[in-house]
Amino acid sequence: MRHFTRLADLGPAGMQQVFDKALASKKQAPGAGLSGKLLGMVFFNPSLRTRASFEAAMLRSGGHAIVLEVGGGVWKLEDRKGAVMNSDRPEHIREAIPVLGRYVDALAVRTFAALADDDADAADPVINAFRELAGVPVISMESAREHPCQGLADLLTIRENFGTTRALPVTLVWAPHIKPLPKAVPHSFLLTAAAAGCELRIAHPPGFDLHPEVLAEARQYAAQSGGSVSVTHDPKAALASSRVVYAKSWGPASNSAPAGEAATRITAHSDWLVNGKTLAAAAQNAIFLHCLPVRRNVEVADEVLDGPHSRVIDEAENRLHVQRVLLHDLLNQKKEIRRVHIA
Amino acid sequence: MRHFTRLADLGPAGMQQVFDKALASKKQAPGAGLSGKLLGMVFFNPSLRTRASFEAAMLRSGGHAIVLEVGGGVWKLEDRKGAVMNSDRPEHIREAIPVLGRYVDALAVRTFAALADDDADAADPVINAFRELAGVPVISMESAREHPCQGLADLLTIRENFGTTRALPVTLVWAPHIKPLPKAVPHSFLLTAAAAGCELRIAHPPGFDLHPEVLAEARQYAAQSGGSVSVTHDPKAALASSRVVYAKSWGPASNSAPAGEAATRITAHSDWLVNGKTLAAAAQNAIFLHCLPVRRNVEVADEVLDGPHSRVIDEAENRLHVQRVLLHDLLNQKKEIRRVHIA
Amino acid sequence: MRHFTRLADLGPAGMQQVFDKALASKKQAPGAGLSGKLLGMVFFNPSLRTRASFEAAMLRSGGHAIVLEVGGGVWKLEDRKGAVMNSDRPEHIREAIPVLGRYVDALAVRTFAALADDDADAADPVINAFRELAGVPVISMESAREHPCQGLADLLTIRENFGTTRALPVTLVWAPHIKPLPKAVPHSFLLTAAAAGCELRIAHPPGFDLHPEVLAEARQYAAQSGGSVSVTHDPKAALASSRVVYAKSWGPASNSAPAGEAATRITAHSDWLVNGKTLAAAAQNAIFLHCLPVRRNVEVADEVLDGPHSRVIDEAENRLHVQRVLLHDLLNQKKEIRRVHIA
Repeated sequence: MRHFTRLADLGPAGMQQVFDKALASKKQAPGAGLSGKLLGMVFFNPSLRTRASFEAAMLRSGGHAIVLEVGGGVWKLEDRKGAVMNSDRPEHIREAIPVLGRYVDALAVRTFAALADDDADAADPVINAFRELAGVPVISMESAREHPCQGLADLLTIRENFGTTRALPVTLVWAPHIKPLPKAVPHSFLLTAAAAGCELRIAHPPGFDLHPEVLAEARQYAAQSGGSVSVTHDPKAALASSRVVYAKSWGPASNSAPAGEAATRITAHSDWLVNGKTLAAAAQNAIFLHCLPVRRNVEVADEVLDGPHSRVIDEAENRLHVQRVLLHDLLNQKKEIRRVHIA
Repeated sequence: MRHFTRLADLGPAGMQQVFDKALASKKQAPGAGLSGKLLGMVFFNPSLRTRASFEAAMLRSGGHAIVLEVGGGVWKLEDRKGAVMNSDRPEHIREAIPVLGRYVDALAVRTFAALADDDADAADPVINAFRELAGVPVISMESAREHPCQGLADLLTIRENFGTTRALPVTLVWAPHIKPLPKAVPHSFLLTAAAAGCELRIAHPPGFDLHPEVLAEARQYAAQSGGSVSVTHDPKAALASSRVVYAKSWGPASNSAPAGEAATRITAHSDWLVNGKTLAAAAQNAIFLHCLPVRRNVEVADEVLDGPHSRVIDEAENRLHVQRVLLHDLLNQKKEIRRVHIA
Repeated sequence: MRHFTRLADLGPAGMQQVFDKALASKKQAPGAGLSGKLLGMVFFNPSLRTRASFEAAMLRSGGHAIVLEVGGGVWKLEDRKGAVMNSDRPEHIREAIPVLGRYVDALAVRTFAALADDDADAADPVINAFRELAGVPVISMESAREHPCQGLADLLTIRENFGTTRALPVTLVWAPHIKPLPKAVPHSFLLTAAAAGCELRIAHPPGFDLHPEVLAEARQYAAQSGGSVSVTHDPKAALASSRVVYAKSWGPASNSAPAGEAATRITAHSDWLVNGKTLAAAAQNAIFLHCLPVRRNVEVADEVLDGPHSRVIDEAENRLHVQRVLLHDLLNQKKEIRRVHIA
């Protein structure tokens, strides 16, 4: 694995190895496996868990991280090829990426979807430019198309709670919000749950389809893993006998909502608020997951987040554990697959 | 001591131990007593000394710190219980705090007073939520009610200059400003000076009373330590024979100033500017203290800050020394009093 | 060398030692020469390369850095002596600098030119206040007058490409921009190229003169090193047979442009865009340099930046290597030349 910015970089078998290693490393002292390693963390968007868990993963194992906030202390970055750069973005990623690659051993990147065009977002231009230009391994802290470390943490949490993920009925249920959100998290849950062999049901209002390429990729994984993927607009049907309720908001499909109507389209579905009734429609001992941050009483009611079914804090902790495994793998690759700048 | 967010967590005897340890550690190389320890630093408000001295305290002793600026690179955080989260704050502290507690060994928090209601500020809701939810030790970098590390640094500086603090006449004198400031620093000076047995005089204009609960707590400490606390509106009387002049601005008591008049109330007292005449009213060899930042020639005249009586830089340095002691104590507690997430 | 904020702190001989050490250290593992050392990095302005390369230089050699962004997480700082501080800047550098000096082993500072008056900028008041007040070594990350680490990285890159810098024809060619930029980078290239014995030609439009004091200093270095400095308004003449094309934009001389006309003066020269024709006017195997960030297709055309002559990424990498050498030298000085706060 040269880079990790999409589940396909691992594949279903590699994913299971990450789970096995993460479960083992949770029982051990961190060690110094990243000693002398330096991670450059580039944020185009805000973060709490991602920032803290990646930095903690490096520091816990003897490594270090440099945190760069684009448009904060760091110049705003242009990403359009061929741009005449007369805007408020004084530097191009075509310089910024290879320069940073000379200073660090790997680059972690967070770059959200632009939300204007689902196909443009699914092409994931910024993180793919990092893969092309960095000269060192690149790991995603969420990009336009996927949030793969989140997906791994989600499924690790499910495996910890149920011992296995195979044939487990799990439901991804859309939640209301005050504005359209990216689809990277639901995409990654879809991909990892399918690759883990879950019986995955997705429930969302009409017009909020996930990207067809990602759905197709998930169905391929499901075919390999013995899982399944179904989509419905009826949350009760999706939740029946489900062992996992995964709540998440995302914006309408870009080809289904006229520009400017996205926000209206979302607030029209405030009855999708995930509350005690939602949980009651699932299996009795179902667990509740959400990637966080969550808008309480807009997306999910207090009674769910503060109740006994919630595993959202364990889920967030698992970000740390899967990322430690991934960083160890990426930063201890054989030397020939990356440029060595300092020797 | 599980947490340190108020002087009461230490008490007068614990406070003296911190001074003894800090004076001893100033004469020694830092060592590696925090090796492998990770501090999460959460800032709801700006900082210079606090940020640099806490991070330096960790790094100097082999530990590390992760710095998170709420509303900067980190999501804005909601803190109201039961809120319907449809504002510009996408995450609630009820998730953020326990999640961060899973990644680090202790949390340091800065959260200023809201300044609308002194009683609400004295209840200190945000830092108390950290105590409740963190799962790891919490240390205050200033909260609505107290700035306890500042108070310790202040009294350590006094002890270094005079050998003892017992029965020493010290004056906390109010200073003008361009806007109402929180009362955490004067509260902490009040508490630590009383606990250290000083003969403390406080001088401020009418209507600028410190919080009655804090005054009562300070008088209890004074009764134990042989000190005293007096309050006057006459700075000359308060300064007479005083060995320490501690200048600080704070806003009017919330029950004494109609909303919107606080700023006017402050500028009406520009004659309280601390200058050479102020110092001349104190003992001849008095030292001058201020927590910093200080607005030169608004709060305190250049002649005082640049003159021979000032100890403000030594005072700021002592932040580092008391915090090193506190961090060592908090981070090397017996394991049973905190959850161990990574082991 | 107590501080390094201008080339004169090193002089031509010291500069060659830095090049020699940097070339040697590029071939070696970083080691732990900065173990236990703490650098405070104070940014009054944004950064990418500087931030990442300084922090990487510390971390690569076992040290650590604390990053402080003035006006970001850190209070805005006043720098005018005698100011009545009733503006939006609540802290004065006369407190901030010595306080930080108590927490760290050295301070790195970035403070851009104010651009209102070239003479005021050339006097470099902020970084000189750091030299005066820090109590620890100070290193420039770019100030109003010079960007000396950039200049060293530039000349190291030239030496690596040509084996020597002596008598090498190199051209600093002005480039268009959307707004006036500081002169620190061209000043430093001018000084280092002259000190390295280059045959330096500078080409800029009328009215864009570099500061006469810096030009005079460069001519003194050239006289010592066997180099030369010439200035012209004719880029073709300057480029003829040149082995290095160094492109950089800077604003008009403050005494030549009425206030408010600076931007107009710059856009009037958009025909100075550095493109393939510019390179064609130089020697056939000329290399292209730019300090970055660069506005593509405003300052420099894509064909140059993406073409075979460009060395801008190597040049940026060399920031790391020269800074490691300088930090080692500054942080391992004999103890007597700095105050020891923690011992």
